[in-house]
Amino acid sequence: MLNQPPEPLDLMFQALADPTRRRMVERLSRGSASVSELAEPFKMSLPAIVQHLQVLEQSGLVTTRKVGRVRTCTIDTGALSMAEKWINDRRVGWEHRLDRLGAFLDALPSGTDKGK
Amino acid sequence: MLNQPPEPLDLMFQALADPTRRRMVERLSRGSASVSELAEPFKMSLPAIVQHLQVLEQSGLVTTRKVGRVRTCTIDTGALSMAEKWINDRRVGWEHRLDRLGAFLDALPSGTDKGK
Repeated sequence: MLNQPPEPLDLMFQALADPTRRRMVERLSRGSASVSELAEPFKMSLPAIVQHLQVLEQSGLVTTRKVGRVRTCTIDTGALSMAEKWINDRRVGWEHRLDRLGAFLDALPSGTDKGK
Repeated sequence: MLNQPPEPLDLMFQALADPTRRRMVERLSRGSASVSELAEPFKMSLPAIVQHLQVLEQSGLVTTRKVGRVRTCTIDTGALSMAEKWINDRRVGWEHRLDRLGAFLDALPSGTDKGK
């Protein structure tokens, strides 16, 4: 089988599968930050932080913009919504199925009750 | 730094980062399935399918139960909710922040209006 290019959701979920990157997204959900502000809470080299940031950028979850010498990072709620919606659709699909099954079972004549 | 054990969300997002595994979760959101039913739409060996299934099981997104010779796979909406909630909290956090910023800007006396 030929290698397929990664799908957008592959990159997003891959980006979110790392605790450092999730903490970076958490930080950015409280407001945009420069790369050095973003790096501040981590005991990690700046190149390592930049590498994590690149994974987040490639996934679309974070955008960055350089003005002068400062690169500012912002989360993209559209991309977050896309990942959230995929999970939500699966969960709701399953829950509706269980509801329909419950309604079907409720509508069945109950053998024990009717037999009395 | 010592290697940390993976966090539950690491395993869940890692599991969802693969298109085959997402299609397996999609299939299971429409109802439980045996391993061979689950494998049916994929042009993939059964061992490859079982390996993907193990990743889903280890992440908690899918549970399996063996009765006789048949192993039945079911999605776990609790685990799906956990991953969904993490993303939702980040997105909503950011949107609230934007709303507060908008309200703050609206409340500012407008220089151009007041100057007239």
